[in-house]
Amino acid sequence: MNRTVYVNGYYVKEDQAKVSIFDRGFLFADAVYEVTAVLEGKLIDNAGHVARLERSCKELGIKMPVTAEELTKIQKHLIKINNLTEGGVYLQLTRGSEGDRDFAYSEDIQPTLVMFTQQRDLINSAPAQKGIKVLSMDDIRWRRRDIKTTSLLPACLAKHIAHQAGCDDVWLIEDGYVTEGGSSNAYIVTNDNKIVTRPLSNDILHGITRSSLLQLARDCNLEIEERPFTIDEAYQAKEAFVSSATTFIWPVVSIDGHSIGCGQPGEVASKLRDIYIKTAIELGE
Amino acid sequence: MNRTVYVNGYYVKEDQAKVSIFDRGFLFADAVYEVTAVLEGKLIDNAGHVARLERSCKELGIKMPVTAEELTKIQKHLIKINNLTEGGVYLQLTRGSEGDRDFAYSEDIQPTLVMFTQQRDLINSAPAQKGIKVLSMDDIRWRRRDIKTTSLLPACLAKHIAHQAGCDDVWLIEDGYVTEGGSSNAYIVTNDNKIVTRPLSNDILHGITRSSLLQLARDCNLEIEERPFTIDEAYQAKEAFVSSATTFIWPVVSIDGHSIGCGQPGEVASKLRDIYIKTAIELGE
Repeated sequence: MNRTVYVNGYYVKEDQAKVSIFDRGFLFADAVYEVTAVLEGKLIDNAGHVARLERSCKELGIKMPVTAEELTKIQKHLIKINNLTEGGVYLQLTRGSEGDRDFAYSEDIQPTLVMFTQQRDLINSAPAQKGIKVLSMDDIRWRRRDIKTTSLLPACLAKHIAHQAGCDDVWLIEDGYVTEGGSSNAYIVTNDNKIVTRPLSNDILHGITRSSLLQLARDCNLEIEERPFTIDEAYQAKEAFVSSATTFIWPVVSIDGHSIGCGQPGEVASKLRDIYIKTAIELGE
Repeated sequence: MNRTVYVNGYYVKEDQAKVSIFDRGFLFADAVYEVTAVLEGKLIDNAGHVARLERSCKELGIKMPVTAEELTKIQKHLIKINNLTEGGVYLQLTRGSEGDRDFAYSEDIQPTLVMFTQQRDLINSAPAQKGIKVLSMDDIRWRRRDIKTTSLLPACLAKHIAHQAGCDDVWLIEDGYVTEGGSSNAYIVTNDNKIVTRPLSNDILHGITRSSLLQLARDCNLEIEERPFTIDEAYQAKEAFVSSATTFIWPVVSIDGHSIGCGQPGEVASKLRDIYIKTAIELGE
């Protein structure tokens, strides 16, 4: 690869893209991030991602170093200079560096902004066509999962265990209920055709794709129940699926070795995925 | 400052010390760390820190890129070239970089090792002499606090809130019991002179200073109870204190505005601090 990436106001080659070892993003995971999907060279659901970034920053007291408009300009410039047609734009904003390591930070510290593109097949992806197998696991993450921080080690470890067990991803369980996937929101479709997903709280990420998806489902007159569900309920479900910015919707065909429905991607998931992608391209900017 | 620091085999000036933006330490907080105190130019309790680093690596499947002996050689070289007499040596080991962002990682990824010195007065420190004020707060961190990872955002935020409230640090509470301080282990001394501290588990860091300290206390025939204690019990305690690598022991003189004992550094804390420092210098390497 020979991408051009963005680091604090400069466009540089990826092998030159570096940050100080004193950056709080490196030392303390004192950082937030967003990933916006790109289809046909257009940013998908980007206004939602930028709004969530602003919310994450506000929750943590991190200053936005550029306006939302400037941010989008950089995203679009990266897409252009890297000839990206399909994939995503990653952005990470850290609290910055004050030149030494200290838990304490001043209010006027200058943030670090890093952005890069990732080429990936989002539409013709094998997991979307075949569905994914998930493994359930205890949710041991911190309690503010609504803030999209880079404290992602628990997710990395959980996914690694799932991969070693021949699965594609994890579903996390807390107090008997599914919270979400390793990097996605989790849904089931009940035998009476209701889409069930956990309501928003500090326990889960407020998915941008989730929000668009639920609106599209309502527009299609699909019934939605926002309530916690157990893993046993998921085993018995007619369908299961996940949503996230760069998967859109992936059907879940197996959980902990239990086939979901007939063990094939379900109708609701497939229909919602098609509608989501069609609408996303229409509305993409 | 014009330190020389260590980055992946090279000694470089601190303003040149950088890591790739694709390093998993930066993107995922997929990294562990240690801080070893330095007194009179000597490493304090370092064998314990290196052993804990090896344990953290084992728990996460991160490879040690150098042997324990080589690590100590680098620590000593940094102390020498930076003329450090008192302070600490920080080291951070990340899982490394595979050139792009992906939750998944291969087993043979090459880790990133970063090390630097910090000059600080450890013996004649104001908090040690006057004691510190702490504020209690819910412990919202992930559940594997025994692994010393760089997922430190919750601690940064908690300390920031404490500082804004005019306090020096936090004590974290889970299920009604104190887990530990923001970056230290927590202790109380009961009215019948027992030192009480939470037993080791995944809920707290397995403090190297804690381990040395408890041994010294036993050697002094002080009675120790390793059991969880509540914040109410702490309010009523005769003394309270914290321990960590670079504070050694700091008396706690106030918790949530309640004066502890007579609101002055307690006898047990002061005695243990003196013995710890004396022994540490004798055994330092």
